[in-house]
Amino acid sequence: MKLNENYKKLNESYLFSTISKKVSEFGAKNPDAKIIRLGIGDVTLPLCKEVIGALHEAVDEMAKKETFKGYGPEQGYDFLKQSICDYYKERNIGIDINEIFISDGAKSDLGNILDLFDVDNTVLIPDPVYPVYVDTNVMADRKIIFMDANEENGFLPLPDESIHADIIYLCSPNNPTGATYNKDQLAKWVKYAKENDAIILFDAAYECFIVDKDLPRNIFEIDGAKDCAIEFCSLSKTAGFTGTRCGYTIVPNGLKGSNTINKMWLRRQTTKFNGVSYVIQKGASAVFSKEGQKQIRENIDYYRENAKIISDALDELKIKYTGGKNSPYIWLKCKDNMDSWEFFVLLLTKAQVVGTPGAGFGKNGKNWFRLTSFNTIENTKEAMERFKKLYL
Amino acid sequence: MKLNENYKKLNESYLFSTISKKVSEFGAKNPDAKIIRLGIGDVTLPLCKEVIGALHEAVDEMAKKETFKGYGPEQGYDFLKQSICDYYKERNIGIDINEIFISDGAKSDLGNILDLFDVDNTVLIPDPVYPVYVDTNVMADRKIIFMDANEENGFLPLPDESIHADIIYLCSPNNPTGATYNKDQLAKWVKYAKENDAIILFDAAYECFIVDKDLPRNIFEIDGAKDCAIEFCSLSKTAGFTGTRCGYTIVPNGLKGSNTINKMWLRRQTTKFNGVSYVIQKGASAVFSKEGQKQIRENIDYYRENAKIISDALDELKIKYTGGKNSPYIWLKCKDNMDSWEFFVLLLTKAQVVGTPGAGFGKNGKNWFRLTSFNTIENTKEAMERFKKLYL
Repeated sequence: MKLNENYKKLNESYLFSTISKKVSEFGAKNPDAKIIRLGIGDVTLPLCKEVIGALHEAVDEMAKKETFKGYGPEQGYDFLKQSICDYYKERNIGIDINEIFISDGAKSDLGNILDLFDVDNTVLIPDPVYPVYVDTNVMADRKIIFMDANEENGFLPLPDESIHADIIYLCSPNNPTGATYNKDQLAKWVKYAKENDAIILFDAAYECFIVDKDLPRNIFEIDGAKDCAIEFCSLSKTAGFTGTRCGYTIVPNGLKGSNTINKMWLRRQTTKFNGVSYVIQKGASAVFSKEGQKQIRENIDYYRENAKIISDALDELKIKYTGGKNSPYIWLKCKDNMDSWEFFVLLLTKAQVVGTPGAGFGKNGKNWFRLTSFNTIENTKEAMERFKKLYL
Repeated sequence: MKLNENYKKLNESYLFSTISKKVSEFGAKNPDAKIIRLGIGDVTLPLCKEVIGALHEAVDEMAKKETFKGYGPEQGYDFLKQSICDYYKERNIGIDINEIFISDGAKSDLGNILDLFDVDNTVLIPDPVYPVYVDTNVMADRKIIFMDANEENGFLPLPDESIHADIIYLCSPNNPTGATYNKDQLAKWVKYAKENDAIILFDAAYECFIVDKDLPRNIFEIDGAKDCAIEFCSLSKTAGFTGTRCGYTIVPNGLKGSNTINKMWLRRQTTKFNGVSYVIQKGASAVFSKEGQKQIRENIDYYRENAKIISDALDELKIKYTGGKNSPYIWLKCKDNMDSWEFFVLLLTKAQVVGTPGAGFGKNGKNWFRLTSFNTIENTKEAMERFKKLYL
């Protein structure tokens, strides 16, 4: 029996374990220090009332023979898929119900979608990057080309006509940089994808943080994107589902001119997946109700308030950054162009604030740093007051 | 961009859609017929009280900031993994907590585990078979050898020393045949796997239906199995979780002499999966409580009563069959060695009973037929009374 030897080529990420170790060490030496964590990539507010009510109702249905649900459709229940169609319709995007696939989260689908593509494809991935894009391709030994996201291009790389790629990863608003493409920029990517017979894997996990009316929340707001793009979305950040687990993927019927890829994904999911729990799908459906949308908006606004506290402080200090306005992430240039790990230590020891060194996301993050808006308003305020003192 | 061309080699299964079409046509022509479905492969009784209580509690935890859960460990919460360790311990099988991986179901893990193995491996699969074993390997273009499960070997094929295989699928109690390996037989498979440096993928989804004390419920009851086997189990049939979604996979630390495969699976799951919903894991944990075990046992006994009604009728008619006693499935020889589709039509038109033609599971099912125990006791009794009349 032969193992998949590509696993040996995977880089182990010690980013979050190293951070955790350094913070623990500092805490042990300074037991009175009040450490504030702005490195968290996870939501902190509870599920909204509408979702809680729907989950309870669904649990009660599972308790009675008359309403009990066994196997459901692998691609998700129509009630949830219809809610998502309607959600897109509000922004004038027509999505057919069979283009939507419900999953346990964007991470699963972003990895599993690669089953549909030959190993012999060239993959284009931005740097800095969410490591899952890279690792899932290393596991299959696909050729990867990195494109630089940096200060010069505002961390929003555009197509380089001299390079050919078959599969392109875009994440907007971006993790970790918070940078968000505008429509013209995404249109350039759609044009490039068509010219190269490539496919765009568009990660829209943070779309709900977009407030600028002119910025696209979905790739399908761009003309022609349904010919060349698959969109991945998640309720993790939208509705605090990081521990509840539900997302969805949109595979257009006319992708690459036919319904082949849509049908392949259906085949993949019906063969290797058995659908998301009925209970969770009912909870997810409540997110899209009128009252649910109002309630999750309150939570998102809470995080946005934190993002504003952070970006206001950076503005005051005239520090360069991306994100913050349309994203829960703020990506800032380290003090005096410091190495990001050096800046991490400075921030921890002098301000007792924890963030994430940009180097952990790729070479272009070497002198950059990520702060997140998932702590309380009180802590975020205090953290930024301390942060400012570093620049006195 | 090149697609995975292997998908073109997949056979579309029209088994259940063809059954459904034939039943609908008959129903339309005979509106007064009371059709009884014994073809169902899905549970019908609601979740037990303990599970319902735990699900409600977990939903309430998600409603409060203090108890809200965000991202959990991808491989599952310790509280659930510990419950499973204890469940195995009751049968004197020592499983380390980090050998257990919680998933959304055995089907997902049975497909995804193949990520860890090279394409260049020969796979051994019984016929008749659960189609997922075949399809997931066709998707990756692995060489498949089928082994005959037939009347001669009691639908329990044993190793053929003249054939080399690298990956072996065993399912016991079997779907679709209900046949269950004894310890000596499984020991032969473990011996063969070791001699061939092969790995056994052991599907134990129906283990809870085993009542004979001498029959192994898990591959790890066999000496040496931890060196060469991965076990997949599910709460789908155990606790009626087909629509609730939770299972677990056991990858031994010492598999093939090291913890490499365990660590690879951990890497796969942390990269392409984000864990099962906290709410569902709490519900699953309640299955393993003392009261939970008592309650699920009542449901299982209900299905077993149905299996007994079916097998008693077959005994009375002296019809050859496997399963029934230690399995929810009964696999019987068609009347007068009829073709299984012919027998399907006979049963539908003359007795208004629906079952599943064995041909749908492989060539060795050509003259065999599957009945299941997932209807009500009343319906099952009536169905078997009508069935018996066919043999007058």
